[in-house]
Amino acid sequence: MALNQYTPEEPISSIATALAPAALGIVRVSGKGCVELVSKVFSRPRALLEAPGNTIVYGWITTPAESEQKTGGPEPVEGPQTKAQKIDEVLCAVYRAPKSYTGEDMVEIFCHGGPAVVTAVQNLMLKSGFRQANRGEYTFRAYINGKTDLTRAEAVREIIDSHTDDSRSHAAGRLAGALYEEIDSIKKLIVDTVAAIEVEIEYPEDEENFSDTFDCSGLEQAVRRLKSLVDSWKGEKLYQDGARVVLAGRTNAGKSSLFNAILKEERAIVSDVEGTTRDWLESWAGINGIPVRLFDTAGLRATDDVVEAQGVELSRSLVNDADVVLYLVDSTTGMNDEDEAFLNTCQIPCILVWTKIDCHNNMSLRGAQRRSKLQYSSEVHLSAKTGTGLSDLFNQIEKILTSGLSTERTQAGLGSARQKDAVAEALERVRHALAAAADNYSLDAVVQDLEDALDSLGEVTGIVTPDDVLGSIFANFCVGK
Amino acid sequence: MALNQYTPEEPISSIATALAPAALGIVRVSGKGCVELVSKVFSRPRALLEAPGNTIVYGWITTPAESEQKTGGPEPVEGPQTKAQKIDEVLCAVYRAPKSYTGEDMVEIFCHGGPAVVTAVQNLMLKSGFRQANRGEYTFRAYINGKTDLTRAEAVREIIDSHTDDSRSHAAGRLAGALYEEIDSIKKLIVDTVAAIEVEIEYPEDEENFSDTFDCSGLEQAVRRLKSLVDSWKGEKLYQDGARVVLAGRTNAGKSSLFNAILKEERAIVSDVEGTTRDWLESWAGINGIPVRLFDTAGLRATDDVVEAQGVELSRSLVNDADVVLYLVDSTTGMNDEDEAFLNTCQIPCILVWTKIDCHNNMSLRGAQRRSKLQYSSEVHLSAKTGTGLSDLFNQIEKILTSGLSTERTQAGLGSARQKDAVAEALERVRHALAAAADNYSLDAVVQDLEDALDSLGEVTGIVTPDDVLGSIFANFCVGK
Repeated sequence: MALNQYTPEEPISSIATALAPAALGIVRVSGKGCVELVSKVFSRPRALLEAPGNTIVYGWITTPAESEQKTGGPEPVEGPQTKAQKIDEVLCAVYRAPKSYTGEDMVEIFCHGGPAVVTAVQNLMLKSGFRQANRGEYTFRAYINGKTDLTRAEAVREIIDSHTDDSRSHAAGRLAGALYEEIDSIKKLIVDTVAAIEVEIEYPEDEENFSDTFDCSGLEQAVRRLKSLVDSWKGEKLYQDGARVVLAGRTNAGKSSLFNAILKEERAIVSDVEGTTRDWLESWAGINGIPVRLFDTAGLRATDDVVEAQGVELSRSLVNDADVVLYLVDSTTGMNDEDEAFLNTCQIPCILVWTKIDCHNNMSLRGAQRRSKLQYSSEVHLSAKTGTGLSDLFNQIEKILTSGLSTERTQAGLGSARQKDAVAEALERVRHALAAAADNYSLDAVVQDLEDALDSLGEVTGIVTPDDVLGSIFANFCVGK
Repeated sequence: MALNQYTPEEPISSIATALAPAALGIVRVSGKGCVELVSKVFSRPRALLEAPGNTIVYGWITTPAESEQKTGGPEPVEGPQTKAQKIDEVLCAVYRAPKSYTGEDMVEIFCHGGPAVVTAVQNLMLKSGFRQANRGEYTFRAYINGKTDLTRAEAVREIIDSHTDDSRSHAAGRLAGALYEEIDSIKKLIVDTVAAIEVEIEYPEDEENFSDTFDCSGLEQAVRRLKSLVDSWKGEKLYQDGARVVLAGRTNAGKSSLFNAILKEERAIVSDVEGTTRDWLESWAGINGIPVRLFDTAGLRATDDVVEAQGVELSRSLVNDADVVLYLVDSTTGMNDEDEAFLNTCQIPCILVWTKIDCHNNMSLRGAQRRSKLQYSSEVHLSAKTGTGLSDLFNQIEKILTSGLSTERTQAGLGSARQKDAVAEALERVRHALAAAADNYSLDAVVQDLEDALDSLGEVTGIVTPDDVLGSIFANFCVGK
C-alpha cells in the first residue's frame, strides 16, 4: 500500500469486527464531516449531530428515502418518493476530534453481528460518501495526528495477532509505552553526551585530549541498554510468531493421542471458526505460554504405495521445517531399526517420547530398549491417556525453544524486526562513537555517529521515519484498525 | 437451557463478537453492580463509577494488584503487593438502568479484536464476580424487563443469522415491530368483538337470536389477516433457512465452472473464515436474494471403483435432499443415455442446463439433442465462461423455489415456526368461534374460543408464554446476545 493512498481527513469507513455470526458487530468511520454523513442515514439525525464526544446515541440505520430503488413487484410507485428502508437497530458512539482513536471526528456503529447486516451497514456507508479504509489506516491517522508513536502502533497489530496470553501480555506492555519510554530514556543519554561535546567544540577549554576528560559513562550505559533491547528480539519473536513442533513416529506410536492430549490441555486461544487441512492435522497450542503450531504427520515409513509415499514425503518436509520434533516410540513394543534410523539422521532438535507408559506390559520391555548412541536432545516418558509426563514434555519443549534467549523477559522488549534493525544500527553507531572518541578522532566525527544513532532510534518511535517504512508498517494491519 | 438458569440481575459477562483476529472485540456485562465490578479491574475506577448512562470512558483493563501471582523467575518477591498487570487499552461504554439493551446497568468493553486479548478480558471478568452468560440471556433480560417483545427478540437472532440482504431486510422489519403491530391490531379486532358479546350476555336486549345482530365483520377481517400471516411463513422460512441447490451431471459437464461462476456473481454474505468440506464442495450463494446452499457433487456415473462409488452414492443422497437440482449437459457433446436415465428418474424439481454454449462447435450439435419425453421443470442454455444465461438460470431457480408462496412479501410476515404454530392455532379458534356463532351455540362458547385465540396471539408476542417455550427460544441465541 503506497502511503499516498492514506489521505488524512477524507471520510473512511470499514467493518472492524470479524465477519462471522455473533451478537454484535462494529462499523467504524473517521474523518472530516463523518458525523454529518452518518446522520443522513440515521433515524435520529439531530440527536447524532448534537451528541457530545464520547456519548452513545440509540437509533436505526436506514436508507435515505430517495435512494430506495427496489420495488417488490411490478406495481407502479405511488408517490415521487419511495420509503426509507430500515437496515438495523444500532447504537452509535460519537467521538469528537481530537478526543478519538484517530484524533479526528469518529462514529462507531454497534449493530447486530450477522455478516449480512454488518455488510449492509458498511455498504450503505460506502454509498453515503465514505471511502473503504485501507489496512491500518485508522492507526496511521492516530500516528500522524500524534495520538500514538510507532512502537505503540505496532503493538496494536501485535496484540490482535497474539496466540497466547503471554504474547498478548508483552504486546500490552509495548502498547502501554514501555518500549517508547526505554527508547526515549536511551536517547536522552546520547543527547546529553552530544550536548557536552558541542560545548567542548564551541568553547575548547584547554589543549588536553578530549578523551581524557570525556565522560563515557552515559554512552556505555546506552550501549548496554541497546544491546539488551536487541537481544530481546529473538525471544519476543518466539512469542509473536510462535514455533513449529512436529509429531513424528511410526504408525500406532500414539501420535494422534498425544496431539489431542496436548490440545485438550493447552489449546491456544484461537479462532472458533477455523478449518482443518487435508493432508495433516495442525493446530495452535500454547505450551508454557509459547505459541506453538503443532503438526500431526502421517507415518514416516518407507512405502511402495504412491499416495502413502506422498504423505510420507510431506511428513519429511514438515519435520525439516520444524523447530522441535517429538519422535514417538511405543513403549510397549520398543524401538526398531526404523526408529533408530530416524533418530540418527534427524537434523532438528528432537525429543524422544516413550508413549503408552500406562500399559502394564511396558515395564518389562523398557529395560530392553536399544539406545546405542542415538541423537536426541532429551527423552520423556508419558501417557497421553493419564496425562503423566505431559508437563515434563512441555518443559523440555520450552527449554529447547528458549535456549540461547535472554531468559529475563522485560516489557521493554522489541516488537518487530523493523524495530530490531533500527536499534541494532543505533547500537553500532554508539559503539563506533565510543571507539572514535577513544582513538582521538575529531569530535565532529563522534557527534556525527551519535546523531546517526539518534536518527535510528527516531525511526523506532516514528519521530524520523521514511515514507516507505511507514507504508509497510500499516499495510500489515487489519482493515478497520 | 432450563429457564431457571436465567437469573435476572445476577452480573453476567460474555464475549459478544466473533472470536477471530479483527480490529475490535466486545466483552459485554450486565446486572446489578456491574459497573462497580468492572471498575475494580479498570485503570480509572472513579471515572467509570461516575460516568452517566450512554457515555464512553477511556482506560486500561488491568488485573487487580493483589491477584498477580505469576513471577518471571525464581527471584524473591520484594514487597507484600505485586504489580497490577495491564490487559488491554479499552473504551468502556456505560449504560444505566433502565436505559440499556437489557434494562439493567450494563458495560460494554471495546478492546482490541485478537482472540487472546478478548479472551483475557472475558476471563478477568469471570474472576471478578461475573458469571458466564447463557445463550440469549441478554435478550431474555430485555424481554422480562419489558424492553422487547418475543417477535422482536426472535428477530434479533434472525438478523444475526441472515445469509442475504433480503433475509436481513425481513428480519429488520420484524425487529422494528411490524409483526408485533400486526398481531396487536388483530388482537384489538377480537377484543372488541368479545367486549360486544360480554355486553350482550350481561344485558340481553331481546329474544332474537344473537347471530342475527352479531357483527362478524371484525372476526372475518381477523381471519383474513391471520391466514395471510400463516401463509407468509413458508416464504419467510425460505429466506431464513435457505434452499439446497445441487449441481449434478457427468464428469466434464461443467459443474465446477458453473459452481464458481455462481459464487463469483452471487456469493452470499458469509463468514470470511469458513472452512471447506472434503467430499463435495458447498457454499452459500444469494440467488435473487434467496439464500441458497449450493453443492457441487462428484459425477453420478456408475463405477466399479470403490472410492469413486462412495462419492457417487454421496452425490445421489445430496440430490435426493435437494430443493432444486441443476442437471448439466455439455452442449458440445450432447446428451447420452446416462443423462436421459437421470432426468427420467429424478424425483426432485430439476433444471436442465446446457453448458459451454460459447464453444463454436455446439451449434451444429444442438439440433441433434435427443429429448424424447424427458422430465425436467425447465431448461437453460448458458456459458459459465461469458456469463450468458446465468440470470435466466437464477430466475428459473427462484421460480421453482417460490412457486406456491404468496408472492407479496410484506414486513409483517412471521419469523419462526413457533410463531406460525401459535398464529395457526389462533386462526383455528376464531374460525371455530364464527362457526359456533352461525350455529347459534351459546355465547359463552364463542367467548371461550375467542379468548383461546387471544392467548395464542399473546404467546406470539410473549404476553402469555409458558416457561418451556421461553427457554427454547433463547437457547437458540448466540452467547453474548
